[in-house]
Amino acid sequence: MSRPGLRARVEAARALRQHEGLLRRTRTCDVLPGGRRVVEGRILSDFCGNDYLGIAGHRDLVAALTRSASVEGVGTGAAHLVSGHRGEHAALEEELADWTGRERALLFSTGVMANLGTLQALLGSTVHGRQEALCVQDRLNHASLIDGAMLAGADLLRYPHADAEAAARQLDARPELPALLATDGVFSMDGDVAPLAALARACGERDALLYVDDAHGLGVLGPQGAGSVAEAGLGPREVPVLMGTLGKALGCAGAFVAGDADLIEAVTQFARSYVYTTAMPAALAAATRAAVHLVRTDREGRRERLRANVIRFRAGAVQLGLALMPSDTAIQPLVMGSAEAATEAARQLEAAGFLVVAIRPPTVPRGSARLRITLSASHTPDRIDALLGALERLPVPREATAV
Amino acid sequence: MSRPGLRARVEAARALRQHEGLLRRTRTCDVLPGGRRVVEGRILSDFCGNDYLGIAGHRDLVAALTRSASVEGVGTGAAHLVSGHRGEHAALEEELADWTGRERALLFSTGVMANLGTLQALLGSTVHGRQEALCVQDRLNHASLIDGAMLAGADLLRYPHADAEAAARQLDARPELPALLATDGVFSMDGDVAPLAALARACGERDALLYVDDAHGLGVLGPQGAGSVAEAGLGPREVPVLMGTLGKALGCAGAFVAGDADLIEAVTQFARSYVYTTAMPAALAAATRAAVHLVRTDREGRRERLRANVIRFRAGAVQLGLALMPSDTAIQPLVMGSAEAATEAARQLEAAGFLVVAIRPPTVPRGSARLRITLSASHTPDRIDALLGALERLPVPREATAV
Repeated sequence: MSRPGLRARVEAARALRQHEGLLRRTRTCDVLPGGRRVVEGRILSDFCGNDYLGIAGHRDLVAALTRSASVEGVGTGAAHLVSGHRGEHAALEEELADWTGRERALLFSTGVMANLGTLQALLGSTVHGRQEALCVQDRLNHASLIDGAMLAGADLLRYPHADAEAAARQLDARPELPALLATDGVFSMDGDVAPLAALARACGERDALLYVDDAHGLGVLGPQGAGSVAEAGLGPREVPVLMGTLGKALGCAGAFVAGDADLIEAVTQFARSYVYTTAMPAALAAATRAAVHLVRTDREGRRERLRANVIRFRAGAVQLGLALMPSDTAIQPLVMGSAEAATEAARQLEAAGFLVVAIRPPTVPRGSARLRITLSASHTPDRIDALLGALERLPVPREATAV
Repeated sequence: MSRPGLRARVEAARALRQHEGLLRRTRTCDVLPGGRRVVEGRILSDFCGNDYLGIAGHRDLVAALTRSASVEGVGTGAAHLVSGHRGEHAALEEELADWTGRERALLFSTGVMANLGTLQALLGSTVHGRQEALCVQDRLNHASLIDGAMLAGADLLRYPHADAEAAARQLDARPELPALLATDGVFSMDGDVAPLAALARACGERDALLYVDDAHGLGVLGPQGAGSVAEAGLGPREVPVLMGTLGKALGCAGAFVAGDADLIEAVTQFARSYVYTTAMPAALAAATRAAVHLVRTDREGRRERLRANVIRFRAGAVQLGLALMPSDTAIQPLVMGSAEAATEAARQLEAAGFLVVAIRPPTVPRGSARLRITLSASHTPDRIDALLGALERLPVPREATAV
């Protein structure tokens, strides 16, 4: 047999990554009250999760999950379009549409599924077999947006991060093709907000559909926490396709895509990751409804606490001369440069009682490995000050070497 | 502006599907005890879901979900490799590995994510950028297996359904490429079991990796319900990559891939739908552990009841002269031919109190639209007889016109 082995090739790729010090580690990380975690027997403060408002363990969510499960059971046992669509799903879709100011919303089990399915539906559905379409994307978009364009067979053109003029040039490069421009609302590894108004203008002038993945903006930014698009004062006309996730600021799991009724109906019909998959548990939809209610009304002032925590962290970091990135969101990365430096800094923070994971290539570009510090409304000012104290003792890049 | 509109193209595709009578309808379908549903105000018996053992509402699952959520909250708020991996996930992975006789299992949020991510990792991970790999697949494989091969950039060759010799010929067509052969264990729309022993032989003789998606076999077939691979007497040597879902016979949600430790470690490192997504709720993992325990020990004799229901249904159908497909599993399709005929039959069954969804193109090949009748351990003999009575009154194809 002379066929080259697939296992050998995969193992070589893994070994190379190990050699470069870029292997990821699986560690269990259990939950204690107050955003603390137990990792390898040690209690750590979690400064790397995306539970930005600190509601994943909120009694309202747990009560809704429990109440619904006692009636509905756990699994739905079928796809939405077979017999898996429950009243809880329908009610949540209505609330998400209302919250984001769109005619209709469609639930997916995860954000990855929402991005893959929606891009596949919008870019890949044609009357006469496969036809070309253009998909223009920010270089730092989430992996699933890139994969969605690939899966749709679209011509993918990327532009330098947050550069709306470059985005417009990419749209102009193929004026003969129907086009969609996709961007993260808040960039997951950088924390900055996309230039949504400028991108909307570029799309409007060029008949391109703007698609915003607001995984890290929904719940945190904008009036009623409706996200980065609402914060930018934009609506359905400027941003016809809005995707949001339910496992970050909303503390649950899953995702949705929202837009006008025709567009969402087309996604319903054509998104393979919607049609050919089991509907998420109704109890999760029930918990998420409770979360939307909490986040939207925000009677507990969690958005304000998060904002105060971000300001406190940034002010302290500036005083320490830390090379912060231009982010006003809960995501406050400290770029360390090499993967080794990021890994070593994370190790030292952990020894000091803080869980901050080093983000390395290929998740971020080579040379920009970082500590992705995330803040939450659940952090007390004390813990933030303590984290700053720990950062002060680290050999982290200071202003002079800012990236 | 002369750019053709993306919306117009998508809308034309939707209109065409409507014209062909192939639009899918979204209807809420609520849960009553005993596998009954409420659809548009009417109580129906559900004969189209995948809760084959009838445990989605089992008190043990609900109790485990509730107990875990009260400690862990709802969402995990982070990816597994950041801070989202809980003890509950680790414990479930160990049980799944033990159950399926493999060294290690890796959880994904859905079966779609498991297939996409694992194929991408195994077929697409190389040391020197993109390199070719061959992926051979059964024509009737689940959509996400096809999409996974596309996403990996693999050379995809398909073979006629369940034809192991044709599969071998496809492997022989590109002997110079590393190769993986992927098949459903039980085919979701046909109910038949793949010729696993013959496929394993073909792969063994040709150094190809065999990947079985056992979404519809796990829990139902084989000793301890370990699935179609165990039923065929095959182990990790013959089927190195085993994928299973947790939202069908297990009554929960999510999926896993299992194999030897090296292979699963590679998937952990390279599967984008594992690395770049929020970990599933720990409470769902806890519920699934309860489900694995129930299904594996099967103290309530659910697998036997399901088998008896399948035999009862088939015996009755044979007596009616119905054109059954060669399936011994819970999936018992009746091919109707045209989409209109299938839709009309589903409508009449619904009027008689049975929820059976018509499965039409593009889910199944043109001309093979069908009623996908599924049986569950939760069906009483009475309801099965009543369904047969309703089928008797339908103008459905009889033996002479069997497909």
